[in-house]
Order: sequence, then C-alpha cells, then structure tokens
Amino acid sequence: MSPKITTELLKQLRQVMKNPKYVQEPVQAYIVPSGDAHQSEYIAPCDCRRAFISGFDGSAGTAIVTEQHAAMWTDGRYFLQAAHQMDNNWTLMKMGLKDTPTQEDWLVSVLPEGSKVGVDPFIIPADQWKRMSKALRSAGHDLVPVKENLIDTIWTDCPQRPCKPLIMLDLSYTGVSWRDKITALRSKMAERKVMWFVVTALDEVAWLFNLRGSDVEYNPVFFAYAVIGMNTIRLFIDGDRMMDPAVREHLQLDSTLEPEFKIQVMPYGSILSELQAVAAGLSPKERVWLSDKASYALTEAIPKAYRYLTPYTPICIAKAVKNASETEGMRRAHIKDAVALCELFNWLEKEVPKGTVTEIIAADKAEEFRSQQKDFVELSFATISSTGPNGAIIHYKPVPETNRTLSVNEIYLLDSGAQYKDGTTDVTRTMHFGTPSAYEKECFTYVLKGHIAVSAAIFPNGTKGHLLDSFARSALWDCGLDYLHGTGHGVGSFLNVHEGPCGISYKTFADEPLEAGMIVSDEPGYYEDGSFGIRIENVVLVIPAETKYNFKNRGSLTFEPLTLVPIQTKMIDVNLLTQKECNWVNDYHQKCREVVGAELERQGRHEALRWLIRETEPLVRVQ
Amino acid sequence: MSPKITTELLKQLRQVMKNPKYVQEPVQAYIVPSGDAHQSEYIAPCDCRRAFISGFDGSAGTAIVTEQHAAMWTDGRYFLQAAHQMDNNWTLMKMGLKDTPTQEDWLVSVLPEGSKVGVDPFIIPADQWKRMSKALRSAGHDLVPVKENLIDTIWTDCPQRPCKPLIMLDLSYTGVSWRDKITALRSKMAERKVMWFVVTALDEVAWLFNLRGSDVEYNPVFFAYAVIGMNTIRLFIDGDRMMDPAVREHLQLDSTLEPEFKIQVMPYGSILSELQAVAAGLSPKERVWLSDKASYALTEAIPKAYRYLTPYTPICIAKAVKNASETEGMRRAHIKDAVALCELFNWLEKEVPKGTVTEIIAADKAEEFRSQQKDFVELSFATISSTGPNGAIIHYKPVPETNRTLSVNEIYLLDSGAQYKDGTTDVTRTMHFGTPSAYEKECFTYVLKGHIAVSAAIFPNGTKGHLLDSFARSALWDCGLDYLHGTGHGVGSFLNVHEGPCGISYKTFADEPLEAGMIVSDEPGYYEDGSFGIRIENVVLVIPAETKYNFKNRGSLTFEPLTLVPIQTKMIDVNLLTQKECNWVNDYHQKCREVVGAELERQGRHEALRWLIRETEPLVRVQ
Repeated sequence: MSPKITTELLKQLRQVMKNPKYVQEPVQAYIVPSGDAHQSEYIAPCDCRRAFISGFDGSAGTAIVTEQHAAMWTDGRYFLQAAHQMDNNWTLMKMGLKDTPTQEDWLVSVLPEGSKVGVDPFIIPADQWKRMSKALRSAGHDLVPVKENLIDTIWTDCPQRPCKPLIMLDLSYTGVSWRDKITALRSKMAERKVMWFVVTALDEVAWLFNLRGSDVEYNPVFFAYAVIGMNTIRLFIDGDRMMDPAVREHLQLDSTLEPEFKIQVMPYGSILSELQAVAAGLSPKERVWLSDKASYALTEAIPKAYRYLTPYTPICIAKAVKNASETEGMRRAHIKDAVALCELFNWLEKEVPKGTVTEIIAADKAEEFRSQQKDFVELSFATISSTGPNGAIIHYKPVPETNRTLSVNEIYLLDSGAQYKDGTTDVTRTMHFGTPSAYEKECFTYVLKGHIAVSAAIFPNGTKGHLLDSFARSALWDCGLDYLHGTGHGVGSFLNVHEGPCGISYKTFADEPLEAGMIVSDEPGYYEDGSFGIRIENVVLVIPAETKYNFKNRGSLTFEPLTLVPIQTKMIDVNLLTQKECNWVNDYHQKCREVVGAELERQGRHEALRWLIRETEPLVRVQ
Repeated sequence: MSPKITTELLKQLRQVMKNPKYVQEPVQAYIVPSGDAHQSEYIAPCDCRRAFISGFDGSAGTAIVTEQHAAMWTDGRYFLQAAHQMDNNWTLMKMGLKDTPTQEDWLVSVLPEGSKVGVDPFIIPADQWKRMSKALRSAGHDLVPVKENLIDTIWTDCPQRPCKPLIMLDLSYTGVSWRDKITALRSKMAERKVMWFVVTALDEVAWLFNLRGSDVEYNPVFFAYAVIGMNTIRLFIDGDRMMDPAVREHLQLDSTLEPEFKIQVMPYGSILSELQAVAAGLSPKERVWLSDKASYALTEAIPKAYRYLTPYTPICIAKAVKNASETEGMRRAHIKDAVALCELFNWLEKEVPKGTVTEIIAADKAEEFRSQQKDFVELSFATISSTGPNGAIIHYKPVPETNRTLSVNEIYLLDSGAQYKDGTTDVTRTMHFGTPSAYEKECFTYVLKGHIAVSAAIFPNGTKGHLLDSFARSALWDCGLDYLHGTGHGVGSFLNVHEGPCGISYKTFADEPLEAGMIVSDEPGYYEDGSFGIRIENVVLVIPAETKYNFKNRGSLTFEPLTLVPIQTKMIDVNLLTQKECNWVNDYHQKCREVVGAELERQGRHEALRWLIRETEPLVRVQ
C-alpha cells in the first residue's frame, strides 16, 4: 500500500474554499465527514469523499482541511491503515488516546480569530452540527453550511450516484403490505400528535415500501427519502426505476386509490425544497417527526418549534420486531446459509492440508457456495477470513498484501454472511484443521460458555440488551480474559446486517428493550494479539420463554438460534463445560443435524451431509 | 394517620407570594422541593419545608402552589402515604404513571399568560433549574429566584438549624491528614486547570477536613461549605463550634502555618457573598469547579464562562476509594455490628415464640445491642424491621399503625446499620423462626445465588458496577422472578450510608468504574406482595483478584464481604446450590465463626457465641 498523493487535491480544495462561486464568504476550514446524506454505515462510491481527498478508506474517519493543515480523526481499528494510506500532507488524530484533541478543540487551536468552518449540511447529522457549532461559537468562530459539496467540485471523475433497479417483496416475504405499514405509522404519529414524518434512513424507506435495491454494496437499499403526512405520501427517488410496470403495480401508482394512499413520486434532489414547502404550510401545533440523526439540512428545514426529534424512529422500532413471515424467511435463509458453510468447511478440511488455500480463496469459496443457494442476492458484508495472527484483528478483511495461507497449525476464523431474498445472515465459526493446543481449546471453551450464557439466558419482558452483555464475559473474566467489543447487534430481514434499536453491548444504554420477534447476534470472542482470534457467532431470535413463575405475568423471554452451523467440537475442552452447557451444545448440534441435514439431503449434497453428521456427534462429559 | 389541615397555611403562603416585602413582583406559582441547600438525601427538621406546607413527609416529593392549586409530585413508594397525609387542598401527582403531567407541563397548563414561578435558588439544583426554566420560558413564563424562602416566612415555629459539636477524626481513623487531602485536591484542580473548588455536599466537607457532626439524623455531617483556592482555604460554618480548643487544634487555626494551609473561618450564611467576591476577582481562564448538582444560587454566582461543572467532584471520587486505615476501621465496625446482630438473633430466637416481640421492639433491641459496642455513634438509617407482608414493602419503617408481631409463621426481614467512629454498616438478614415453606426456601435460595454471583464475581479493572447487576438476577430470572430495585450502593466510611459515585444498578450508566478500595452493598431481594420480603445484604470491599491470565496486566477485581453475619441456613434449599455456591456459604460462615466468634469470646458473650456456632454449621450438598 503506498499512500495517495494529495498535494494537488488539497491545493484545489483550498482554492474552492475561497471561491465565491461556491461559498458566500471564504471558509478557513472544511469538514469532510464519513457518511452520506442518510447516515448510512455502508456508503456508495460517490459518497466516499473523505477517502477521495485523503486516500484513507476505512469505514470511520473525519477529515478537516484548513489553509495550513489537513487532519484525520479515526479510531484504534484504523490507526495503522490510515497511516499507510495517507501522505505527509495529513496529520493522523488518534481518537481514544489521551492527548488527541477533539475536532472542536483542534479547530479552535489552529484557526485565526473569527473563522468560518464549512461543512455540507446534508452530510452532517443535526446532533453533531449542534455540538460542533456550539463549541466553535463559544470560541468566536462560526460553523456554516456550504450548499455545494466542495469535494464534489474538485472530484472530476466522481462516480455517478447508483440508480439500480428495484426488487419488490410480496406479502409472503414481508407479512405486511406497505399500506398497512403506512397506516400503523400514522397511528404512531397520531399518538405523538405529529402530522408529518420524514423518512431519512435508507433501510427505513426500503422497509416501509417493501422494496429493496442494490445502490450500496452489501445493503439492499436504494437512494430515496419519503415524507409521510396524515393524508399524503411523498417518495423522493431518481431514475427510470418508477417506469418499471412491476414497481408501478407494487406501489399502485396507476390505480384509483383512496387519496391517503396515493404515492406522489418526486425527484430525489427535491427533498429539501419540498420539505421547506411543507414547513411553510404548517399550522401551530403541527409537528414534524425526524430522527435526531437526520442531516442538519433537513432538520433545519423545519422551524425548531415544529420539530419532534427522537433517537429511534417508529419505523426503526417496528422494523426490528420481525413478524411470522419475516421470521420464517430468516429461518429459511439460515438453513441455506448453513448448507453453504457445511460445503465450505468440508471442502476446507480436505484442501487446507495441501497448503493451497489462502484467506482470499476461502472467502471466495464461501461466496461461491452461498451463491448456489436459492434467492441469494449478495454478501451482507465483506467476509472476514483470517488465519493465525490475522484472526486477532477484529475487523480484518484479507487483501493481497496480508493474505495468509490456511494451515493445520493455525486457528481459522470466518465471519461471513449473505443477503437472500428471504433473509440476512451473519455467522462466525472458528476452526482448527489440525490439532489445537490446550490453551487454544481453553480460550475457545470460555468463549463458548459466554455464547451459551447469552443464548440460553432467560430474562423478563422489558429487559434491555445491554444488561445481558456481562453474561457473555463471565467465564472469560473468571480466568482474567476479556474482549474489547460488544456482544451483539440487531440484524435486518433482507436488510442491513447491522440495525438498531437493540443490541447486546456494554457500550450503549439507550437501546430499546428486547421483545419477542427481535433478532440480534450473539458473538463473544477472545483475541490474542499476534497469535489467534476466536469468535463464535449465531444470529438469534428473541422468543417467549417458559418459566416456573413467569414474572407475575410480565412475561419471560429467551433466544432461539437461527444460525444452524456446527460449532467445532475439536476446539472444546469438555471438562470445562457444566452438564447444562454440554446439553446445550448437544441439543444445538442435534437440531443442526436434523434441520440442515434434511436440506443437504434434499439438495443431494451427500459429502457435506456426512461432514455435518461427523461434526455433530454428541459431546460426552466425564463426570 | 389523619391528614394535615393546610387551608390556613396555603392562604398565608399565597399572601406572601404577592407580598413586595419578599418578592420583587408577585409570583403566580411557588415551588417547594424536598432537599436542602446541599442536595442531601437526609435533611434536618428545619429543612422539611415541603412536609410543613403539605403534611406529606416521605423522602421524595415536590410541592407546587399556585393561586388556585396545590399539587404534590411523588413516586410509587409514596402514593399511599401522601394520599393519607395530605388534605383535600392537595392534588397528588403520581410520577411514573402514564397520564401524570410533568411539573413543567402542569404549570404551563394552569398558569395565566406571562406568569412568574418562584423558587428558593439555594434549594433547587442548577441542572433542575435549567430544565424547568427552559420549559417555562418557551411557554412565555419565567422562573424567578426568590431570595427569602417563602415557607420560612410563614413557618412560625420552624426549628432552628442544628449546630451540634464536631467530632475530630485523627489519622488512625482517616489515614490521611486534611492537609494532604487539600494538597491532593489542588493537584486534581491543577490537572483540570481550575483555580477554585466549591465544596457544597455536606459529606464532602466532612471528609475533606476529617471532621464529623450530628446536624442531620443518621448522617454524621454538619452544615458547612468550603471554598478551596490554590493558595487559600475558606470554611463556612456557624456557631461556637470553632471555639472548641480541640477543633482549633485539629484545624491548626492558631498555629503558624504556610499561608496555603491557613483556614479562614467564615459564617455559614456568607457563602454567596464570598463566592461573588471570588467571581469578581477572576482573571480570564480562571475556572471555578462545582458539582453540577450544586444549588442554582451558588452556580449562578460564577459567570458561565468561568464555571467548570462535573457530575462527580474529585472529592466524591477520592472519598469513595478507602485507604488502609479506613478499610481497617470498616472491618472493625462490621465485626462489632455482627456481635450486636448475633446477640439480637439469639434473643429473637428465644423471644419470638412467646408472641411478645413486635417489629418496633425488635428494631429497638437491635439498636440497644449496637449501642453497647465501642465507638457507637448512632444508627446509619431508620431500621427496616418487617415481618410477613410488611417485608414486601421495600422502604418499610415500622410505626404504631403498622406494627406487626413477629411469629414462628412468618418471614422476618431486618435491614439495619449503624455509625461507629471507625465505620458505617448496613446489613440485611431474612430469618424464619419456625419452619419456612418450600416456596419461601426456593425464593430465598435464588436470592442467595444472586448475592453470591455478585460477591464472587471476578471482573477486569475499569468495569462499572452497573455491568454486574444482572449477575444478581440470573438465578431469579431463570424461574421467572425479579426485584424492582438496584443491587447495591456506595457506602461511606463513618459517613453517609448511601454515597456515589459507584454502585451496582441497572438504572445508572454514569457510575464511575469500580476500583480496589471502593465499598458497596450487595443486596438482591425478592418480594411477594401481601406475603413476604426477602433480601440478603452484605457490605463488600472491592479488592484485587488473582486470575490465571490477569487481563493482560489490566488487573482483576473481586469483592470481599465486610459484613460477617450468618445467613440463615434453615432458609436455604441446598439442592438448588452448585458445589461452588455451597463452598462459598461454608467459607463465609467459617470466617464469621472465626472472626466474630473471637470477638464474642473477648466480649464474654457466650450465649451469642453458641448461637453463632450453631448457625454456621457447614451445609452439606447431596450429590
């Protein structure tokens, strides 16, 4: 990896920062955040502006360019990568280290008095704007919205915004029609006494209209906004996608409909002016509901007195609770995914000893087996295929420079998943193709105990996921081991593999309580720097539990694993398991054998079936 | 309990609300919060203004009186009590219920346009003022500080502010001299670049100067403020307490000292004017450090640009980490406390079957035994002595109207503690003096498992207490049981029985990480409304743990019980315990027997010693 040479680009950027064609007054600093206008975690190439200007293409980072300086804030996952990818024009600001200034403090320390700091108001979330603006103002500077994105003005070969065809999901996948979703949304709006709801997150637009797209890699979403009134529906979307008769039929664009379900289709770029028009027509007490993470541009379009901001939108919360059709779809997707992984692991077991399988080859092979499954669309994130020391890099993705060959002497960690039309998967298995050491088995077994502790946990209705996080760590803690990431995240239904508003992490407190139908991952791990990584991840469904006393009718919850891929018993030190834990593993493997076995049989994959049967032999605990 | 008749009082209050002698302009509403000027949890009789005006004397509640209305906000613990104690002039606002308006919303709904709402700026914390003021302003009203407390103007027989003699603690109790504490504080101030620190919490003043008082029941504190500069010390305190030669000696008031350790003693009432004088002399960048819970009056005395507010002060954090002398003192106090409780339980075992022991008699007897111990000062909170259904009322305190007789048919719960000169205790034991039912034993055993899960937990340095809360619930949850309170609170060292900044609760997120030397309670419970209450509480000390891998040198922590009182084995269903839990109980009882047994022997309390030996017989688990 050689760094990107940015001298000329920075010169150009500094010129447009003073060019009256783009800025009312010159700006002395310009902020380039990571995100897109929808605060997406994964972004399209045309939105990779921070990578374009700096060369650093990690998933998190904020660049700030002043007349004299160029600085990049990123977190511990990316210190090395950012240092490699950026040239000497850039200063790396290592977030989380004690002496690293915040962006605000740094700006205040370098800017001349009374400076203007510019930012694209569509890219910066309203809450960040507020914090930054306040800090700058108290030091005598101003944060100003720059309408035209200044990076775009110098990015001559900027790729076009994707505008790919839409996928329609019928009731058999979604369980609820978009009309019923709109009706439910309006009743939530009525409850909160708001008249308008602005849908800004891409997965929320997709979910609401039962549509999917492929504008962003790994996330089946498409660029669009929606504004839902009590009697109107506006969908902001570009391209000839709305010319497709099947889409028109799905959205009933040409039918005679009750006016409140008539969708007005408008250009993607007209969201701001339309929202301003809505704002201009508001009567007193007509509030407009937005996510508090919506862009500053859209938030500002609604006068403060009319704004109703919440951290989680009603769509985000409704989307998290999967209905029977979605749950069944997720089950099907996970069975197919398990078939692909049984094929993969069977293949690896044969091929690894030959010394010809690299991390990249293994990842490609996993994708190949998945793509053979029905309704496969794409992967749900970049496959983490890592062996030996690479396994200890939590967000590792193999590239030619780091690509390692799998061997019978190292632990192999595969964290991968796919988008199927009926569901999204995300599974991690840690395997050894030779003989693991006693220490490796010990660590693996503690991780497994943590995985089981969460998966088998019983808890009252209304419990927040973060209260379960320590269960995953207890066995590791007892021996003085830990892992520095959360235990689980929400998973979409043929949608984003990471979604709110629930999860299992010590880091959050504002998560919504778990309820039956929610789907999260359960993925404790252990990482020994320079040696190996261990993680065991299932996607699990929140289900009602049966308890002796049922919390005085408050109700009990637990988890059902949707992922049905064997956990390598070779890695388990059975004597460290309790009888209850041992039974859990055996029951889980029995279910894998029955459910996935039947599907392997049906697909005529006999060799993989034999592998599955071998790998699901019951554990026997010596008393 | 008959309600207090408040018609005449409210009439008088409404008059002074318009009287130019007390208010610049008439106020249309007056807020009477619960607290005192130091945001104390326990308050002196002269500060019980809300109880005076309304009759309601629960520990939490806010009264608001307008020209037409009088309303009282309180939480679920006190709905019944407030309804009983208040007459028809008052409307009870049940906090936590869906339809109950907030104080702000209610005020906006009842006030005429452009109203003034008054409050004593010394009683309302700055953060509450900010929230209330903002809400009122956005509705066209004003929150105004009323200098003279309006309740005090009509409270003709208001008791005097207590001004009791001080207790000096020498190094053998405190481990650190007040001079060294000041030096450490100043170095924290230098770190944060602040020049002044204002000590507003009573326990922080007491801790800083190694003094104790008895101005407030149960809390060994005295009314005072302090303002610490980099070179000056101002102590604001009333009465002839500073005439006591021993106090003068302790504070070295008459010695020739380095000027930076010379204490200037000033009247308690001069804090505001002195602070204003400090503020007037501030140079740019000279910041003043206050708790964000300090009163509006004191916070407002410092111009905003000079204020440095934090949720936990450096004294609060330093005070929480007990040094070797304090820890040893706490150990001694807990041994004496255990002696008293062994005497009590031995006595109860003999007396209860006679049917003559009421909850009040048992509580008095507990106090009597405690008062026989060396360095006993007073109780650390009102004893919760409850039998049968009263045990299910979590904050129960026996009064003649509710006083129940202990019997061999009901569970008895005693939550009590004392202040000794060497430490503060807080212990709960749940006993049965007859034969407990299988269900009672089952519930007790789950609570015990939760107690052990926390007490024996091992966790990495830097872990916050709230992450341990679920460990206490897991065994209950498995059977569909739970309890609706946190698991533990910080405990002072001959100071307040509840103190920050650490604790073990699902409710907080902003607690400071646990570190070796901190002391918290471990008190899970289970409550069956109308039948019984179970709670098992030890005070525990955070200590370094030994683990196999020691978190890559991050260090491990665990707890050591300071409380050494037998847990009634009759209540335990041994077969529900794991072998590890069974060993924990046996080891704990062995330690009680050795340590407390030796002290009982020394004190010649042979009958109680025999009781202790009986009660600490090892459990035997049938495999």
